[in-house]
Amino acid sequence: MTDKFAEVTTKREVIYEGAIIDVVVDDVLLPNGETSKRELVFHNGAVGIIPITKEGKIVLVKQFRKALEKSILEIPAGKIEKNETNPLDVAKRELEEETAYQAAELKEVTRFIASPGFCNEELTIYEARGLVKVDNPLPQDDDEFLELMELTLKEAKEKIKTQEICDAKTIYAILYWEMQTR
Amino acid sequence: MTDKFAEVTTKREVIYEGAIIDVVVDDVLLPNGETSKRELVFHNGAVGIIPITKEGKIVLVKQFRKALEKSILEIPAGKIEKNETNPLDVAKRELEEETAYQAAELKEVTRFIASPGFCNEELTIYEARGLVKVDNPLPQDDDEFLELMELTLKEAKEKIKTQEICDAKTIYAILYWEMQTR
Repeated sequence: MTDKFAEVTTKREVIYEGAIIDVVVDDVLLPNGETSKRELVFHNGAVGIIPITKEGKIVLVKQFRKALEKSILEIPAGKIEKNETNPLDVAKRELEEETAYQAAELKEVTRFIASPGFCNEELTIYEARGLVKVDNPLPQDDDEFLELMELTLKEAKEKIKTQEICDAKTIYAILYWEMQTR
Repeated sequence: MTDKFAEVTTKREVIYEGAIIDVVVDDVLLPNGETSKRELVFHNGAVGIIPITKEGKIVLVKQFRKALEKSILEIPAGKIEKNETNPLDVAKRELEEETAYQAAELKEVTRFIASPGFCNEELTIYEARGLVKVDNPLPQDDDEFLELMELTLKEAKEKIKTQEICDAKTIYAILYWEMQTR
């Protein structure tokens, strides 16, 4: 079916091709015949994991985020590399690398585009249950420095108030988890 | 307090300065003395509004998203311009421009960073109640083409399954709304 609001690309300028993102500017023809520009960021997608321990705590990682110039608390997450096709495998790997946990169950909860106005990054979110610590976990990435925390629902909600938890996937995760406990 | 994971910028290369985003690549010094690069996107932030009508329906807008090359259904939203300091004013304006509704109550629900791994974009989300259609609403932006829909909670959840609803702020909004109805 044709999309009556579709914008037709008349020109694409490639601004940047990086390790994480590509940036382009498209000239587009609008439905009313006018023209405009679209600044676009392409990203290969990522996974996030909501790990809930047998004690009923969520496992979070604290890490420095250069875009924010501060450390924040997030659910474990990681990029899907260009040669990877199965987000579930990425979720298993990232959970083990970042937390040293393996999960008996890893269930897809939702998928969402983080910021559709300019970027195609899709996040696939998994819930991890039946967590067991691994003796010799996969090593962390060379340029990642993480600190683990396990929080109750009440503690996690408190960290949203203080803005130590402040990103979309983690705030979603905590609301999702709260919903399960109702 | 010093952040033990802080990354020190040793060089910044400005890649692009646009209307919506700026792109830079930072050379950083890591906590272990090694170096790395960080590809970063700066964005001035945005608001999203969860408008619930007196009939108990959510007001959504369908629009084409060039980054995805398709039209999707989202809560009303809009960028904060560089001269704007109060997200609440932006929320009022965007709600009226995109839906022709004004709200008796506009309450902040949450704030989140959409994709903290590379971008600083912060979304402030409001819940809008007491909606009244305006006779002569603010005009829509020149390059926006929107179609309005009002959905029940059940219909909205169905649109998540079919991926017409697929972005973080809208999926969050529907989970938040569902939580209110419990």
